[in-house]
Amino acid sequence: MHFLTAQFKGKTFVGLTDEAQQYVIDLNESERVKNGVQNLPQTLEGCIELGDSFIDKAVDLRDWVLTHREAPTFFYKMEEITLLAPIPRPAKNVLCVGKNYKDHVLEMGSEGDIPEHIMIFTKAPTSVIGDGAEILLHESLTSQLDYEGELAVVIGKKGIGIKEEEAYDYVFGYTIINDITARDMQARHKQFFLGKSLDASCPMGPVVVHKSAIEDPHELEIITRVNGEIRQHARTDLMIFSIPEMIATLSKGMTLEPGDIIATGTPAGVGKGYNPPKFLKRGDVVEVYVEGIGKLTNKVR
Amino acid sequence: MHFLTAQFKGKTFVGLTDEAQQYVIDLNESERVKNGVQNLPQTLEGCIELGDSFIDKAVDLRDWVLTHREAPTFFYKMEEITLLAPIPRPAKNVLCVGKNYKDHVLEMGSEGDIPEHIMIFTKAPTSVIGDGAEILLHESLTSQLDYEGELAVVIGKKGIGIKEEEAYDYVFGYTIINDITARDMQARHKQFFLGKSLDASCPMGPVVVHKSAIEDPHELEIITRVNGEIRQHARTDLMIFSIPEMIATLSKGMTLEPGDIIATGTPAGVGKGYNPPKFLKRGDVVEVYVEGIGKLTNKVR
Repeated sequence: MHFLTAQFKGKTFVGLTDEAQQYVIDLNESERVKNGVQNLPQTLEGCIELGDSFIDKAVDLRDWVLTHREAPTFFYKMEEITLLAPIPRPAKNVLCVGKNYKDHVLEMGSEGDIPEHIMIFTKAPTSVIGDGAEILLHESLTSQLDYEGELAVVIGKKGIGIKEEEAYDYVFGYTIINDITARDMQARHKQFFLGKSLDASCPMGPVVVHKSAIEDPHELEIITRVNGEIRQHARTDLMIFSIPEMIATLSKGMTLEPGDIIATGTPAGVGKGYNPPKFLKRGDVVEVYVEGIGKLTNKVR
Repeated sequence: MHFLTAQFKGKTFVGLTDEAQQYVIDLNESERVKNGVQNLPQTLEGCIELGDSFIDKAVDLRDWVLTHREAPTFFYKMEEITLLAPIPRPAKNVLCVGKNYKDHVLEMGSEGDIPEHIMIFTKAPTSVIGDGAEILLHESLTSQLDYEGELAVVIGKKGIGIKEEEAYDYVFGYTIINDITARDMQARHKQFFLGKSLDASCPMGPVVVHKSAIEDPHELEIITRVNGEIRQHARTDLMIFSIPEMIATLSKGMTLEPGDIIATGTPAGVGKGYNPPKFLKRGDVVEVYVEGIGKLTNKVR
């Protein structure tokens, strides 16, 4: 199940797409037509909060729509709709794990920087944009805007003190985040938040894939391309701290909630890691691919 | 004008209190009774978003209520209601300025740690509690839970690229935050977020004072007491970075929004600054006083 948030003729809806991401079902509108009522929340995070009953309803609606697909009011081709981020306005900052791939730590510093404990920073909700939206260059503020392709986890269930063994019970699914970073601001302000929270610096999407469709989130290929050139290419099994470790550590004393987003860290190959550095410039097209999820593509303006 | 969020018999409302914080007017209910409609949002951040018209409405309702105060459904004594944090669930993480009083930087380190650039970290919205609610000790996670009394700014208007000269146009008012910190976690995880985001580690309140009632937010006395003992005692003119500098720096590339909260940093006298350190223990009562705003009191459980 591949979920998304999109607009058709200005109306925002929770959608479902196929694995090839060719068609889109408007779950809110199809429910209204099929059942005469609109009970599903109009936001994906609201739907996620329903738990398993949301998946049941989505399957039910999909099966019905696929036999009633002539209706233009709830069945679209992907090119007919405008994608937003799957969760366009998270209810709190996006949680991000820093320095979680050894080769990335080394390209940014040295062996001594490999963390013994998970490092967590956040990105402001105002930084989130969807697939196809433009990354802003903020050239008056930074001359070192950089990309960071990452697998992200979407939390499905409220929890505190979650054990590693049960961590996946609290996962709804997975998406892609490009953790755009102003390296000069990140260094200048010490704590990462400001350099990570510029408007339009958190591309997310295109979809959230339900966990049932991802056998093992630590066996995924991840590739970041800039203007077609491969810059990052790794597998998610290279993470220093695993997803269950992240969820257990974060939730030790802090309640995790449905719709929370955890970006799991970036592998080697960021712009700053090259000699000379390859920072983003106007017109660059950045594409983050994660196996089983899709491609997140954004142009720099 | 002193605004608050409170509950009476389980119903949450936006309230107004007098400077002595003795009576409370339920703005939502008094509007319903007076006008027969309920147009005011049921959250303080929703009201703040209305801009100046909210202040006009609040004045209008207050003046009416004070001549109709016999009615028990919208006029209470402070002891009849349960205070929540003025903004119980911020729409994003609380923004916090680190190392913003020189003497505090020195008690935690040395001259070299005095920041040249504003340092910003965040606290999770799930950490917010109101006046009178209990701070959780989290003793299985930390043995170094510490207090940090702070003046906090509440943003009133959406803005990006805000100039220092116009910064106060974007301020709605002021409140108090106790930036409870697990020092050991803060050190262990490098980035401050995790050690600052434990559940119940962000007491806020008791009220938000509208800016019209605070002549100069940099001329306020601030005192933190633990079990009556004065631990922090300073004036807000000692801040390294002023409120206009914070607002200008934060909004350079990141949109600020109504209801955003900026904790402005803590003065010297935190528990870790004492020799031996005076960390919080079960049963401690922490009280943060800021001149013109009031007292924020919380017990440690």
